[in-house]
Amino acid sequence: MNSFFPPKGKHLLLDLSNCTKPLLNDAAEVELILKQVAEESGATIVSSFIHQFKPVGVSGVIVIQESHLSIHTWPEEGFASFDFYSCGDSVDLEGSVERLVKAFEGEIHEMKIIDRGFVPSDHD
Amino acid sequence: MNSFFPPKGKHLLLDLSNCTKPLLNDAAEVELILKQVAEESGATIVSSFIHQFKPVGVSGVIVIQESHLSIHTWPEEGFASFDFYSCGDSVDLEGSVERLVKAFEGEIHEMKIIDRGFVPSDHD
Repeated sequence: MNSFFPPKGKHLLLDLSNCTKPLLNDAAEVELILKQVAEESGATIVSSFIHQFKPVGVSGVIVIQESHLSIHTWPEEGFASFDFYSCGDSVDLEGSVERLVKAFEGEIHEMKIIDRGFVPSDHD
Repeated sequence: MNSFFPPKGKHLLLDLSNCTKPLLNDAAEVELILKQVAEESGATIVSSFIHQFKPVGVSGVIVIQESHLSIHTWPEEGFASFDFYSCGDSVDLEGSVERLVKAFEGEIHEMKIIDRGFVPSDHD
């Protein structure tokens, strides 16, 4: 009997367009929003890291107990790219999409939710 | 004419099984390996963050100019889950798979490479 069970999870890949441009270049505000979205989605925050690019752009990662939420922004384009990886089923990834759209006042340009950690029997 | 071009990129989602178990719980060594793989793959490192979970497990993110490389480990299972998101085409994501497999002495459990940042005309 194989006792190995890979950690099951879901991985949201989300691109938003037409976001509020100044916000996308405000590292402190972006960090606040990501933390809020992570918490409201049921994640437990471990740590966060935000980098301000020059002349413009922000990259940030919120490390959570369940994995991570990241952002990369292109303020001049009003474009933001997210990934939200959550192990287990305690984090509301679907709900986080609505929260991110609202917070960044953007539109969904592309969205995928990928299953992670399948076990072979899942595909029988 | 629409002058908006979303940043094109690729996003590797990789799960490795049967990795060297003690290595997966060694945050410093994991950080070194991730930095090395990022650099050897052509990425420019901006910063790195590693978290050691108790009793076991490591989460780490290398923020790169081109986006990020992350890891989450389950040492007791010999399991590690990566994502490597790269904007542009300067990073050798395919080559990074071989480097990660070798460094963690693991086997590919599951791998996907997702295109990011399509423009509508791509789908015509």
